[in-house]
Amino acid sequence: MEITRFVFSLFFLVMMAVGSSGSPTHWRRKRVREPCKKLVFYFHDIIYNGHNSKNATSAIVGSPAWGNRTILAGQNHFGDLVVFDDPITLDNNLHSAAVGRAQGFYIYDKKEIFTAWLGFSFVFNSTEHKGSINFAGADPLMNKTRDISVIGGTGDFFMTRGVATLSTDAFEGEVYFRLRADINLFECW
Amino acid sequence: MEITRFVFSLFFLVMMAVGSSGSPTHWRRKRVREPCKKLVFYFHDIIYNGHNSKNATSAIVGSPAWGNRTILAGQNHFGDLVVFDDPITLDNNLHSAAVGRAQGFYIYDKKEIFTAWLGFSFVFNSTEHKGSINFAGADPLMNKTRDISVIGGTGDFFMTRGVATLSTDAFEGEVYFRLRADINLFECW
Amino acid sequence: MEITRFVFSLFFLVMMAVGSSGSPTHWRRKRVREPCKKLVFYFHDIIYNGHNSKNATSAIVGSPAWGNRTILAGQNHFGDLVVFDDPITLDNNLHSAAVGRAQGFYIYDKKEIFTAWLGFSFVFNSTEHKGSINFAGADPLMNKTRDISVIGGTGDFFMTRGVATLSTDAFEGEVYFRLRADINLFECW
Repeated sequence: MEITRFVFSLFFLVMMAVGSSGSPTHWRRKRVREPCKKLVFYFHDIIYNGHNSKNATSAIVGSPAWGNRTILAGQNHFGDLVVFDDPITLDNNLHSAAVGRAQGFYIYDKKEIFTAWLGFSFVFNSTEHKGSINFAGADPLMNKTRDISVIGGTGDFFMTRGVATLSTDAFEGEVYFRLRADINLFECW
Repeated sequence: MEITRFVFSLFFLVMMAVGSSGSPTHWRRKRVREPCKKLVFYFHDIIYNGHNSKNATSAIVGSPAWGNRTILAGQNHFGDLVVFDDPITLDNNLHSAAVGRAQGFYIYDKKEIFTAWLGFSFVFNSTEHKGSINFAGADPLMNKTRDISVIGGTGDFFMTRGVATLSTDAFEGEVYFRLRADINLFECW
Repeated sequence: MEITRFVFSLFFLVMMAVGSSGSPTHWRRKRVREPCKKLVFYFHDIIYNGHNSKNATSAIVGSPAWGNRTILAGQNHFGDLVVFDDPITLDNNLHSAAVGRAQGFYIYDKKEIFTAWLGFSFVFNSTEHKGSINFAGADPLMNKTRDISVIGGTGDFFMTRGVATLSTDAFEGEVYFRLRADINLFECW
């Protein structure tokens, strides 16, 4: 019968559609590589050098046997552990209003070139953003850009994950540097 | 024909149902904000102060140039790095049987107020729980509650993610404090 | 009518199929515990001891009040913070060509036994692998195997998560140790 054939083909079409979305127990989801949120911030690090305690936003708190905690060590600062509480701004001006704080540490981990390992958070408490974004990863800071992981978040950034691309926007000797963070979030809740 | 119209409307209804669950390649999953697991623990930190090596569960291992490793530094302990191995209990009694150990570090990262950055694990090896939960995030410890990220887990907590809400349940001077951790896991495997 | 009954039963069959894959707002995905990628690497740590600065790949940069930064402290090195930049090899030979670098830190966190907390990255820049894998977790290093979390990745390992099983493949006194890392990734993008 005509209509029965039609209904059957309909049935198979629909089952194929359902099938292509997979059965829930066996299906490995194909991920979407488009960010669900994009953010750009700058943060500003002024390292304590014995003379700038009023302005400094970071300090050396660990150093190798051959170093000290006032001057960054030789051999590309290998072994220096720095803790920071840096202002976050929307543009590249240190004197712009801070929209949050970048808090955590970095640790220079290679003798031959400048490279560091970072663990830190962006902490927001403004009308625009409340909550935190947590980061971890290697920062080979002589590269123009380098990617670290967004490992979690809270508040407005609840459970988020993603990748942050860091670039050194400016530096002045061994006292000041400014990083640009292009944050691309791929898991938003 | 009556039946054909009926079948067609059926078809569209079904396709809409399928469509709303999305095609696997383009679909961004709507997340469930209900925890898949809830846990509450307390952990107890006794900082080494030069006189309590028998009871101490943590010690200062990094400090700024103006500090030392026996007494927490001025300026809200900015720059002090503390490593800990703290007992975890089910209630708020330091002398209750430990069900695991909280192991890792915190680092005071701000001069103006008390705030720290945490990286640590809850390590369990009991009949009730085996495995570990890993945490990272900012802890603005003057706030009544503060959220950090659960960034992963192993064993019973394989691949888990979530948010832990910390609150200071008690503190005695600069030697003892007790944190309550309300752990809400949103990804369970 | 016959055909109407048939169409109705079809309708319910299809709705059940759709229903079993869940509605997108209420459905909690059942996870696949099969790794989407498996990797095995070795990495080699040579700790600076005052005499081996040419070969050393790691150094003590924080220590408790009773320790120093040239010799690992007593009480199972409790409180020693070590930063490292270790070669990664495909086999267990220190002299094999390095395929990447393991960069980060470990911190001994218990007085009674050897155990440490790790935060580090595998950094690759070869024809085979480009990008990084980020790790965090507790390492009770007297256990034959111990699991830590893969908390994120970049490049070839974009957004990955998983579990790495570490085992001590060799050690020579307090200067050299070699870890085997069996990496099982359960989220691949």
